[in-house]
Amino acid sequence: MEKVRIAVVGLGNLGELHIRHLQNKIASAKVVAVCDVLENRVKEIQKTYDIPAGYTDYDQMIDQEELDAVAIITNVQTHHDLIIKACQAKLHIFCEKPLSLDWQECKEIERAVEENNTKIFTLGFMRRFDPSHAEAMKRIRAGEIGKPIIFKSTSLDGVSVIEELFEKRVRGAFHPWFFEMGIHDCDLSCWFLNSEVECAYAAGGAYVKPEFADYEDYDNGLALASMKNGSVAYVHVGKTAACSHVEAEIIGTKGTLRINSIPRRNRLQIYKDGYIAEQGIVDFLERWEDAFYLEMCDFIDCVLTGRKPEITVYDGTKSLEMALTLHKAYMEKRLVKSEY
Amino acid sequence: MEKVRIAVVGLGNLGELHIRHLQNKIASAKVVAVCDVLENRVKEIQKTYDIPAGYTDYDQMIDQEELDAVAIITNVQTHHDLIIKACQAKLHIFCEKPLSLDWQECKEIERAVEENNTKIFTLGFMRRFDPSHAEAMKRIRAGEIGKPIIFKSTSLDGVSVIEELFEKRVRGAFHPWFFEMGIHDCDLSCWFLNSEVECAYAAGGAYVKPEFADYEDYDNGLALASMKNGSVAYVHVGKTAACSHVEAEIIGTKGTLRINSIPRRNRLQIYKDGYIAEQGIVDFLERWEDAFYLEMCDFIDCVLTGRKPEITVYDGTKSLEMALTLHKAYMEKRLVKSEY
Amino acid sequence: MEKVRIAVVGLGNLGELHIRHLQNKIASAKVVAVCDVLENRVKEIQKTYDIPAGYTDYDQMIDQEELDAVAIITNVQTHHDLIIKACQAKLHIFCEKPLSLDWQECKEIERAVEENNTKIFTLGFMRRFDPSHAEAMKRIRAGEIGKPIIFKSTSLDGVSVIEELFEKRVRGAFHPWFFEMGIHDCDLSCWFLNSEVECAYAAGGAYVKPEFADYEDYDNGLALASMKNGSVAYVHVGKTAACSHVEAEIIGTKGTLRINSIPRRNRLQIYKDGYIAEQGIVDFLERWEDAFYLEMCDFIDCVLTGRKPEITVYDGTKSLEMALTLHKAYMEKRLVKSEY
Amino acid sequence: MEKVRIAVVGLGNLGELHIRHLQNKIASAKVVAVCDVLENRVKEIQKTYDIPAGYTDYDQMIDQEELDAVAIITNVQTHHDLIIKACQAKLHIFCEKPLSLDWQECKEIERAVEENNTKIFTLGFMRRFDPSHAEAMKRIRAGEIGKPIIFKSTSLDGVSVIEELFEKRVRGAFHPWFFEMGIHDCDLSCWFLNSEVECAYAAGGAYVKPEFADYEDYDNGLALASMKNGSVAYVHVGKTAACSHVEAEIIGTKGTLRINSIPRRNRLQIYKDGYIAEQGIVDFLERWEDAFYLEMCDFIDCVLTGRKPEITVYDGTKSLEMALTLHKAYMEKRLVKSEY
Repeated sequence: MEKVRIAVVGLGNLGELHIRHLQNKIASAKVVAVCDVLENRVKEIQKTYDIPAGYTDYDQMIDQEELDAVAIITNVQTHHDLIIKACQAKLHIFCEKPLSLDWQECKEIERAVEENNTKIFTLGFMRRFDPSHAEAMKRIRAGEIGKPIIFKSTSLDGVSVIEELFEKRVRGAFHPWFFEMGIHDCDLSCWFLNSEVECAYAAGGAYVKPEFADYEDYDNGLALASMKNGSVAYVHVGKTAACSHVEAEIIGTKGTLRINSIPRRNRLQIYKDGYIAEQGIVDFLERWEDAFYLEMCDFIDCVLTGRKPEITVYDGTKSLEMALTLHKAYMEKRLVKSEY
Repeated sequence: MEKVRIAVVGLGNLGELHIRHLQNKIASAKVVAVCDVLENRVKEIQKTYDIPAGYTDYDQMIDQEELDAVAIITNVQTHHDLIIKACQAKLHIFCEKPLSLDWQECKEIERAVEENNTKIFTLGFMRRFDPSHAEAMKRIRAGEIGKPIIFKSTSLDGVSVIEELFEKRVRGAFHPWFFEMGIHDCDLSCWFLNSEVECAYAAGGAYVKPEFADYEDYDNGLALASMKNGSVAYVHVGKTAACSHVEAEIIGTKGTLRINSIPRRNRLQIYKDGYIAEQGIVDFLERWEDAFYLEMCDFIDCVLTGRKPEITVYDGTKSLEMALTLHKAYMEKRLVKSEY
Repeated sequence: MEKVRIAVVGLGNLGELHIRHLQNKIASAKVVAVCDVLENRVKEIQKTYDIPAGYTDYDQMIDQEELDAVAIITNVQTHHDLIIKACQAKLHIFCEKPLSLDWQECKEIERAVEENNTKIFTLGFMRRFDPSHAEAMKRIRAGEIGKPIIFKSTSLDGVSVIEELFEKRVRGAFHPWFFEMGIHDCDLSCWFLNSEVECAYAAGGAYVKPEFADYEDYDNGLALASMKNGSVAYVHVGKTAACSHVEAEIIGTKGTLRINSIPRRNRLQIYKDGYIAEQGIVDFLERWEDAFYLEMCDFIDCVLTGRKPEITVYDGTKSLEMALTLHKAYMEKRLVKSEY
Repeated sequence: MEKVRIAVVGLGNLGELHIRHLQNKIASAKVVAVCDVLENRVKEIQKTYDIPAGYTDYDQMIDQEELDAVAIITNVQTHHDLIIKACQAKLHIFCEKPLSLDWQECKEIERAVEENNTKIFTLGFMRRFDPSHAEAMKRIRAGEIGKPIIFKSTSLDGVSVIEELFEKRVRGAFHPWFFEMGIHDCDLSCWFLNSEVECAYAAGGAYVKPEFADYEDYDNGLALASMKNGSVAYVHVGKTAACSHVEAEIIGTKGTLRINSIPRRNRLQIYKDGYIAEQGIVDFLERWEDAFYLEMCDFIDCVLTGRKPEITVYDGTKSLEMALTLHKAYMEKRLVKSEY
């Protein structure tokens, strides 16, 4: 069996999750090298997952290893350079979202990807691979709900991780929430509504953790966006929910689809003390475990078969354009027109 | 507007509920007299609900008042005599369930009712009037689920009232649970499956409140009954649930209907501390408020229009036959054939 | 028993519903007169509900009848005059929502009500009386979810009635949807968030029935409103849902409450052909039957006891201010600041 | 990395599922050989999953291959011989349920497994590995619901596969439903209630597909079992449901746990035409995909670490004893005492 030789760059929790899937659960891939700025982390991951090569220098890795593909799971600030170098090295590329936080960078990446267009390029908008989201889109395409006119997206982390999120925001590992979390809602808005943002108003606040305001951030951000084709997107991102709560609703002219309207963890109900309770989803890794796995399977399959992935570099740009508009509307407390 | 002149006998909580409905919410009825062995209670109810006459002697009330109808909400031991006297007085009769705990008494009541057959007689199997149960039957009759083959009935009181239930059992106000609660499940079994019990096995125990065993009672009783037409009824009655929990499932050859599969109190959900919770139904008065009201409206309407009620005296006998079989099976730990 | 002598003005479906409750289900009230411009309707209602007096002239009714109270269930354009005359006649007043569609009128009504302040005045914001909404507020006041920061309100009529709604809009019986339906969402926004609108943006369209646009109306209107105390309200009103769907979510700093997140009609589930289905609520009369009843009981109780109702004339003004802002934002496609 | 060298015997759909997991998703295992009576199937599986060796003769495979473990996924009639030979060959053994349909065979297998006791032996009761079932047991062991007193188990296949099930029953590939499906319910009854069957009554019928009766089988079988420790198990197995529907309820003295009380397929809801619908689970492979994977991971981990699996050969015997009792009760229409 032919195996895709892949390197993973960026060994945080998400990087490790991808390695675990690639190494243990996707027989047609083989992680041949990993790279991170932290040498100890590189060694630890190599040992745990039986990976032959480890690097702290990306250029060196690209140069020395015989690779088919690279998975870029690093901070967004580094995406531009890492992608462009991978394009130059003629590698297949999987890159985590967001593509970039800078529109000019997106445009430069687009050009690099276009020049490397015999190779696969895709982005980690894993929600599209979640079985419920995938089935929703299948039903939409089959015409079951008519034409989608409104998309409501709620993406909340549980308050139990708010201190961790704040700490990451302080040290720059995380960005304001319409970017960090909301980029998914922006991508799904464009995907389900088949359009792009025209203008948006946003509101919200740093209600539970006021210190977020010192970092141009909020613990709840709500936006109402008019899309170019006349449809409407309603986005709520937050960090103060009772549990990890990501809900979506696609309203069409002939019906409505809702995904995860009760964010229950599993199939267990607890009857006790006068109440019927279901545990909420604990965190995003738990919620999207299957989706993270399926998106990587899809990428590997694209590499092996040459099939083009549905998620393109342009989806990265489009979702950023919407996130930029929402964040600006929030910061400037006004209706902001998309500049793109 | 003509009003039905009705007397209510038995002024416990349920008696009061019926009076409240009759007096305040059913304009075509008028409670003209009440009767109970406790004189203070009679006076209290007269005052609260503005009722002209009060009695501690049923015979005297029948004799002195100009009545159209009587509602018998007393302990089951008294039903036989009160019904027969009401029949002799040519009154319309509404009687609480069970009809009696004695099969011979049922037969005597049947004869008295037959002799009084120009008048309305019905029993308080209010579950049949619950909008969800009523709609289930409507759909069954429309053929939506084919022929009903299995009925699963769960009737549990919340553990919060177990001491009160025990105290009532000790003083004889309540009877073993397959009679007191299960008579409803037995009536619904016969109604939905359109049959009668052939034989049954039962199990369970006094698990949480072992003292129930001293009174031929149990806090959880489970029965599996073969019905005469080949269908099957599964009955679970109990007193130890997290909340008031009455659930029903009718399985047909072409589909299944479930009623109250999650016994939520209202339309409110609480998201807090990692859980999504709904409050359970607090007690049976809350659950069946509408049904108690609708059954009384139906009775009054039958009296006014002469329409025959769906629930007959024979339903009282049939449900008792099943309850007797279930209780006997429980007590004798064997498969019991119905003797009827 | 003392009975409140009440007249009902406006004999549409909702007027009839109130009469049915007052006449049949609220023993402490007595409808002594009804009034409508349509004489036949007056006679029909008198006959059905056994009401002694009928009028087509409101002034004449006020003059000739010995009334304690009046219930004004007419078109909103008439509220101002009818209320002011009832104030002058020193009557207790129950008026349907909205108070008025004109801010100046609201102010004039406020003054008239203030001058009649020994009498009860309240408005028909019945959602506050729905048991789930009432319990939500009770829990909020008990501090269970901390401080409310976001309110999400969804108020959709089923598409099955869209033609009827359109016809009413054409002949002026109904007004644009942020007024007609959204006034409830506006009232709840102010009530739950304990604030007033500061500014709002709105979007949407006449997607399914484009003709609504000819009447300054829409079949889906979505608004995002910043409230004066920094909280946020998200409002979605519509007429194209699969069923009658009114959902509310109150997000606090320590928890979230959701009301009717699945607009199921009753407690019945249907398992058939690979699906598990619940029927949606058919129409608003079905959804709010209890709430309409409870609000009228509360009004009658206030009249009898002198207790002041929670819903005041100022709530009428406040909710209109918000509805005006939302509608204007929709029509002008911009962020609109409240002028009040 | 050391890999467990495993052979898979029996290449039906379930055998292939296990191979897919072992070969693609469990990096620490390697399927080195497969065996089936159908030579074409052997070749097909070898090719699809890149497996070096293929056999139609089990003895030959055991003899020629250097194996650590064998997974026996064949018809139950063959389990006894295949297990005993694998024990003699000193292999680790994973065997599908039921252990056997013959109590004497179970006892012989027990002895063989005891003699091979330095090796791992376990059975495919995968439901125990389902995350919801596993969490239920964790909560029970933590005392959250007190002592388990009642277990209700519902295991229904969708009617869409009834013809396929019938065809398998006719050619002997499948056995009566209390064995084929119910063995899981029996295992869970013993596991959750921590006891064994004492006696049981059963009822039901071949309601939808009467031909099942010709094969000592039924399309719905319901049993009520008294367990030796005084607890009660309620089991319903069937083949006529609207979807694949496996539900479990564990009632304790202090609370209740329910698993899959609504057998929804995923997180998607469809609002259309007046109804809110969720798709039911399509088939058992879909429902238990994770559980099948996790049980195999657990087996491989036991082999690698020497940890003893929780599911033992004695669980195979105990569950069969209960299934034999239930089936006999059904066939003989009486209360049957366990003979074991």
